[in-house]
Amino acid sequence: MQRYKLTIEYDGTPFVGWQYQPGLPTVQGELEKALQLFMNQKITSYASGRTDTGVHALGQVAHINLPKAFEANTVRKALNHFLKNQPIVIRQAEAVSEDFHARFSTKERRYIYKIINQSTPLALEQNRAWHVYQPLDEIVMQEAANHLVGHHDFSSFRCAECQGKSPMKTLDQLDVNRQGSLITITARSRSFLHHQVRNMVGTLSLAGRGKWTADDVRVALEAKDRRAGGPTAPPYGLYFVEAVY
Amino acid sequence: MQRYKLTIEYDGTPFVGWQYQPGLPTVQGELEKALQLFMNQKITSYASGRTDTGVHALGQVAHINLPKAFEANTVRKALNHFLKNQPIVIRQAEAVSEDFHARFSTKERRYIYKIINQSTPLALEQNRAWHVYQPLDEIVMQEAANHLVGHHDFSSFRCAECQGKSPMKTLDQLDVNRQGSLITITARSRSFLHHQVRNMVGTLSLAGRGKWTADDVRVALEAKDRRAGGPTAPPYGLYFVEAVY
Repeated sequence: MQRYKLTIEYDGTPFVGWQYQPGLPTVQGELEKALQLFMNQKITSYASGRTDTGVHALGQVAHINLPKAFEANTVRKALNHFLKNQPIVIRQAEAVSEDFHARFSTKERRYIYKIINQSTPLALEQNRAWHVYQPLDEIVMQEAANHLVGHHDFSSFRCAECQGKSPMKTLDQLDVNRQGSLITITARSRSFLHHQVRNMVGTLSLAGRGKWTADDVRVALEAKDRRAGGPTAPPYGLYFVEAVY
Repeated sequence: MQRYKLTIEYDGTPFVGWQYQPGLPTVQGELEKALQLFMNQKITSYASGRTDTGVHALGQVAHINLPKAFEANTVRKALNHFLKNQPIVIRQAEAVSEDFHARFSTKERRYIYKIINQSTPLALEQNRAWHVYQPLDEIVMQEAANHLVGHHDFSSFRCAECQGKSPMKTLDQLDVNRQGSLITITARSRSFLHHQVRNMVGTLSLAGRGKWTADDVRVALEAKDRRAGGPTAPPYGLYFVEAVY
């Protein structure tokens, strides 16, 4: 048996998320179909982060165990061949030892969230970014974001279905950058609560629109209650960029 | 009657091109459906460049005549409302005089062509760029491109169906830029022959791969024969960026 680490890019649009669900299009389901075609047997995959419906990945990481050892590039090419009708690509395959676990060994996860801030709707960026037509002040958004960085109870930004044991997380980075109409928010943490990035982005957007002050975001955090937080930003602006081991 | 200039962005993927064809999805057809819903009558649109199947636009320009004058922003918003289920967006509407013609008044057209040059296939950029997996040397591509800039007979880069009266065109710019795996080719001219940009890009890719020298591209140009030119690059890497008046 040989374990492989796969770095995966996908367009989340046609999928109900990473996690396998019978009869529904999922990234894991399509990857495991390709693994079945490659190996003629059922191979299970384990991801660093189980992305939601419509969420994209530039660098999702998953691990698989294959019954025999192949050259890593052979694994990558074979899977890309069987995935060729899906918007899923194996960017890299690497042989790893059996103590590597895509989910539990992750030291840091990085997401970006794309907002396109312009008065006209999106054409080429549909399903690739959140369109916000009201002007956003990225300086105020960054001030608000600064209140969220650090070790906190993130209950105000955690969805009701979140299965995480504790709401305590350390947010290492939450940066807001504007380039023309594109606002990119970068979030970095060892791990995130379910919907945490989208709930933080939705809340920052209230500050950016002037509906909340930066300090209101601090107050929301300290309330430790989801009802105190802002709305959930839509999934299609979110990208799983990197898992660090 | 009032004439309007429309600046239009679209994802060309679901369309068989700009030009109306009965029973087929076209950008012009969808725009004119929106115009029909807005004005309750048939309104014809005229584009600066009739893009082919799968070709995108960031700044296509079209003009329309409306039976009465509206505030330009009203025209933009109304059309965007009726186009909301299509990947077509009116970026700008401007009232113009009746001597403005989207096609015949164009002084300069600018296209970009996107190549993603990496060994792995595309996921998020599917239908948005041409994937070339063989390494491309962008320096050699630029050298080859320099032979094409200027006033020439472009018969070697003109498709058989081209209806242009003359193969003589002045190419003002053909720049090749690389940023990581993304190679962007910018082409600027008063007007282009049918498939000219895609035929030039396909030919430059031969030089980039080392199959041709930069000088072979000059020889191909001088042959004034389509059979001497390189292959046609696929449509989905091409973007109509700007028409200048």
